[in-house]
Amino acid sequence: MVGGGFAGLWAVRALKSAPVRITLVDRGNHHLFQPLLYQVATAGLSAPDIAAPLRQILRRQKNVVVRMATVSTIDADAKTLELDCDGGNETLAFDYLLLATGATHAYFGNERWAAHAPGLKTLDDALDLRRKLLLAFERAESETDPDARDAWLSFGIIGGGPTGVELAGTLAEIARHTLQGEFRNIDPSRARVRLIEAGPRVLASFPEDLSEKARKQLERLGVEVSTGTPVKDITADGYRLGETFVPAKTIVWAAGVSASPLGECLGVPLDKAGRVPVEPDLTVPGHPDIFVAGDLATLKQANGKPVPGVAPAAKQMGKHVAKAIRARLKGVGIAPFRYRDFGNLATIGRMAAVVDLGAWKFSGIVAWWFWLLAHLFFLIGFRNRSVVLLNWSVAYWTHQRAARIILGGDDTRC
Amino acid sequence: MVGGGFAGLWAVRALKSAPVRITLVDRGNHHLFQPLLYQVATAGLSAPDIAAPLRQILRRQKNVVVRMATVSTIDADAKTLELDCDGGNETLAFDYLLLATGATHAYFGNERWAAHAPGLKTLDDALDLRRKLLLAFERAESETDPDARDAWLSFGIIGGGPTGVELAGTLAEIARHTLQGEFRNIDPSRARVRLIEAGPRVLASFPEDLSEKARKQLERLGVEVSTGTPVKDITADGYRLGETFVPAKTIVWAAGVSASPLGECLGVPLDKAGRVPVEPDLTVPGHPDIFVAGDLATLKQANGKPVPGVAPAAKQMGKHVAKAIRARLKGVGIAPFRYRDFGNLATIGRMAAVVDLGAWKFSGIVAWWFWLLAHLFFLIGFRNRSVVLLNWSVAYWTHQRAARIILGGDDTRC
Repeated sequence: MVGGGFAGLWAVRALKSAPVRITLVDRGNHHLFQPLLYQVATAGLSAPDIAAPLRQILRRQKNVVVRMATVSTIDADAKTLELDCDGGNETLAFDYLLLATGATHAYFGNERWAAHAPGLKTLDDALDLRRKLLLAFERAESETDPDARDAWLSFGIIGGGPTGVELAGTLAEIARHTLQGEFRNIDPSRARVRLIEAGPRVLASFPEDLSEKARKQLERLGVEVSTGTPVKDITADGYRLGETFVPAKTIVWAAGVSASPLGECLGVPLDKAGRVPVEPDLTVPGHPDIFVAGDLATLKQANGKPVPGVAPAAKQMGKHVAKAIRARLKGVGIAPFRYRDFGNLATIGRMAAVVDLGAWKFSGIVAWWFWLLAHLFFLIGFRNRSVVLLNWSVAYWTHQRAARIILGGDDTRC
Repeated sequence: MVGGGFAGLWAVRALKSAPVRITLVDRGNHHLFQPLLYQVATAGLSAPDIAAPLRQILRRQKNVVVRMATVSTIDADAKTLELDCDGGNETLAFDYLLLATGATHAYFGNERWAAHAPGLKTLDDALDLRRKLLLAFERAESETDPDARDAWLSFGIIGGGPTGVELAGTLAEIARHTLQGEFRNIDPSRARVRLIEAGPRVLASFPEDLSEKARKQLERLGVEVSTGTPVKDITADGYRLGETFVPAKTIVWAAGVSASPLGECLGVPLDKAGRVPVEPDLTVPGHPDIFVAGDLATLKQANGKPVPGVAPAAKQMGKHVAKAIRARLKGVGIAPFRYRDFGNLATIGRMAAVVDLGAWKFSGIVAWWFWLLAHLFFLIGFRNRSVVLLNWSVAYWTHQRAARIILGGDDTRC
């Protein structure tokens, strides 16, 4: 099993009492609850609140060895893979392989934008972004030139999907409420938070009426929402929206992901986002013992739409792979993978969210409470849940954010 | 006011309603509760749990401007100082100056040891150390050579003061309890944690019988305590203790501090640890408008002993400076600074601590509870206290540690 995210970890757990020896390889030491990553980036939670060590989660499951390592190559025919280790490489042989290394941000060929508009996929990304957001206000405070000051108070969030919407809504709340009264030279509530979506509406995976509600809720929180115009360029000083250059010192990329590069090792054709098109049983075409699951896989459902790149889909895929391996060991077959869609939710900011459960659609405060309870419920581990709940309660009542600490040493100046 | 630690922050707060304009300069954005820093280094707390943004603490105090900046030079005669800013330098003029920038680790002329034996003074230090400690067990797990594996499981803590004792005790607990059952190739409880003190006893600032109790409690937790033999060399592979080379991949420096280099800017003679010898009113000799407080200052008490470099002394000095400034504005004099010693406490590990209140001395479980309550009481801010209490409760009952997350990107391998 390569990757300790939702797909990999759920597959491992579903093989709990199976007669197999599992090696779980991950480049980090922790499982990350990615849906709350934006809360770390916006200083609401600290990194350990949304992550748990894989070893700790799996310590009672005796058929698992956890290895913190990167996979450098896979030989699909010889059924081996190579771990990149400090003291030299190491080869692992496998009977079955699950590749579930997820996705990373993609700049669609504009890789130089990466330096000015970082994305948000790992805890390190989130901490870098937190630092960048908090420092922008510090820089604005000590800047004497009014234009430069405005540029420090101008934030561009590129991409109107759930991550972009969450970041924009929370950032507007920070500027308007959290930082209120703390600065002497600037008024943080004058900060300009702009959410930029190239397509016609935000939250495109939701029904149209919920997209419209999300836009209204964002605007109420103080976010400028721009749709229908793509970003043409990004520099250290701002972004070009159509023909207009908007000065902005802080730009965040939430616009696109591509699959982890590990898919390339398999030697099969990939889709244009680098994902592995899998068979209905989640195996790689021509390699019936290699499974791919989660954001690294792409599979069309019966209705013609692809399985979405969301946490519940990854968990379901992981469990399906475990079931398939159990069945193979017994020499029986199982039905192909079918995604069960329990609904779609996105939070926007303080007391604002949208929920689409198919038959039921709602937005606003009720949706926000629903989102909050659902996320608390799915967060792994007792301790994380209670700390997160506590931080959220305090944040809710005081508008404060628990993790407003700038880390990162020597260049923390002014 | 330069420095937002205990001395600087307490001085600022004690000037709350005074007719002054205060600029508080700190290179970070937060006040740090340094006595719990070792808890961040040992993954018990996350960084934001023990830090609070200075702006947030002071936002209601309207006579304060907070500046996140480094001070590059001080002109004591012209009464100006220079801030090192991103967009060029900036000069601040002052009527009164308080320098309270604390201390950093010192290697007594063996600066090349710094690379192999990092110290613990800032949050960044603590996160680096956490990463190093957690990675050592990961490396041991994937190491096949038995000698190399033992070196990854060998930890040297150099310095038997409170920080060294706390780190050694907690690390032994992690190895023996927290990580139990999580590894497959190594037995973490076989890790060798050695506390090395060059002097005759650990916790030398405590009475001798408490030092002896601390040693016994450390040994019960599984720490090897070595006293009376200094470390002669430190390399990437271990340390030389007297004539014996001890292989150890993880070495921590808790042996010495020297004052912040900013003292040199004053142009007065410093003591050999770089501290500024101050007058009994905490001013710099020859510069009655410049105060120095906290770990950067050194002052002999009436009993001939120097004021100790502990948080309560720094707070008292900060408050004294505020009082002195208020008195000067009114044209009256005040009594010289006198340190009030309320006692001395140090924690050792799970349910082990020593407390010296002068008349009362105790150790063991009662001392540990006393230490715990005292530290919770002094921790700034409601939120931090409750999160810390919650993390500690969970840690106490489960032996788990909340922040066992390895951060830091690309070199997280094996």
